Amino acid sequence: MSKYNFDSNSENSEILYGRNPVIEALRSEMSINKLLIAQGDNSGSIKVILSLARDKQIVYQTVDRKKLDDICGHKNHQGVVMYVSAGEYALVEDILNKAREKNENPFILILDEIQDPHNLGAMIRTAEACGVHGIIIPKRRSVQLTGAVAKASAGALSHMLIARVANLPTVIDDLKKEGLWIAGTDAGGETEFFKADYSGPIGLVIGSEGYGIGELVRKKCDYIITIPMVGKVSSLNASVAAGLVMYEVFKGRYHK
Amino acid sequence: MSKYNFDSNSENSEILYGRNPVIEALRSEMSINKLLIAQGDNSGSIKVILSLARDKQIVYQTVDRKKLDDICGHKNHQGVVMYVSAGEYALVEDILNKAREKNENPFILILDEIQDPHNLGAMIRTAEACGVHGIIIPKRRSVQLTGAVAKASAGALSHMLIARVANLPTVIDDLKKEGLWIAGTDAGGETEFFKADYSGPIGLVIGSEGYGIGELVRKKCDYIITIPMVGKVSSLNASVAAGLVMYEVFKGRYHK
Repeated sequence: MSKYNFDSNSENSEILYGRNPVIEALRSEMSINKLLIAQGDNSGSIKVILSLARDKQIVYQTVDRKKLDDICGHKNHQGVVMYVSAGEYALVEDILNKAREKNENPFILILDEIQDPHNLGAMIRTAEACGVHGIIIPKRRSVQLTGAVAKASAGALSHMLIARVANLPTVIDDLKKEGLWIAGTDAGGETEFFKADYSGPIGLVIGSEGYGIGELVRKKCDYIITIPMVGKVSSLNASVAAGLVMYEVFKGRYHK
Repeated sequence: MSKYNFDSNSENSEILYGRNPVIEALRSEMSINKLLIAQGDNSGSIKVILSLARDKQIVYQTVDRKKLDDICGHKNHQGVVMYVSAGEYALVEDILNKAREKNENPFILILDEIQDPHNLGAMIRTAEACGVHGIIIPKRRSVQLTGAVAKASAGALSHMLIARVANLPTVIDDLKKEGLWIAGTDAGGETEFFKADYSGPIGLVIGSEGYGIGELVRKKCDYIITIPMVGKVSSLNASVAAGLVMYEVFKGRYHK
């Protein structure tokens, strides 16, 4: 069901690396073209990868570790690199359908111009763990689905619908017509994040690392929630903040 | 009050970079040797930095931006690099004293072999925001306080006591004698993280990214809490997991 697009303008596009991301991709519906394994590497998880690849009749090659360094531009590949087909992003409609199929109120994460692939990857990982049906990112001024994002997601990207849209405010209007409440997370919000009611259909908006939620998107939010802080710093890491709020929604749904 | 040690064996040791970390350090008690600013950069936050430096009578130099790239080994310095004195880490005793001074039950974060500077930085940032009195890390097999950690902490490192200890299990025994309850966070724990009682003096243990909490440390924990997950991934990013549990403690203390 998942649809992907590893942006072909990006350096890390169309490759996945690292053992967990590769294992997860092999277990998913992702379209895989080729698998490269470092010569002489036959540790446990590499054996798992080779066995999964055989089951799916995917061609693999053993190559010099140095070649993997060159392909990735770094040594952080754990001896395994995979070429995957550039697919398509999901549609917002696919995300809403997924919620319908599961007979659940939609729970959608809306990311307003996240810049850091580690943050996006960590958010996808948390989202997958706590029942988010899909994630919406803007086409411009946002990190796209690169290999670094896939790796930081620890395989969760293979199981998450991601829609990429031209205009977030317009899409938020559409989601409201579908009955979603839109909650923005930002400093200076009126409701502490653990006091809001998340029981209905919800779209959770997280702002960018440097600037928070953009003005146009903020105006579309039904309410703004905030994370109280008692120290001297004025904001949290974006993936930590997103995790806190996502798990509040999770608690409201699964642990009433 | 803060004491630091930027490990001099590390590549990024004894330098801080990025505008927010430098501003926070200038506002802290940190001992600063020199400040380098990229030539021609006179944007708003650089003006703030220069003004703070003048107030503290810290010498600064304008240099070619390329030189800053060379010093940092990357371009991610936002036009500002600072040399700080290698100081000393805090002692565990300093952390307990800080709680006493504030007349609060101790709230200590214990990090068992965290490897990723982004994760350590994000955890320091969350800890500072939610009232943690100090953080304990092991001397070996853990990322130390490098420039990358300082940057990821967005300045919070300047306000956080960090103790570095040779033997975590021994220190945990000492903390128990001080009346702390030790809660480990790990998959397969018996208590969901939002159902535990965190009202007393608490030491919160977070395990490493790849392996969780080590066996010796785990045995010392009074109880193991767990973060429930409904998807296919089996763990969260370490800084997200730490953030979830830290904020549960925060809620128990400040929002009863």
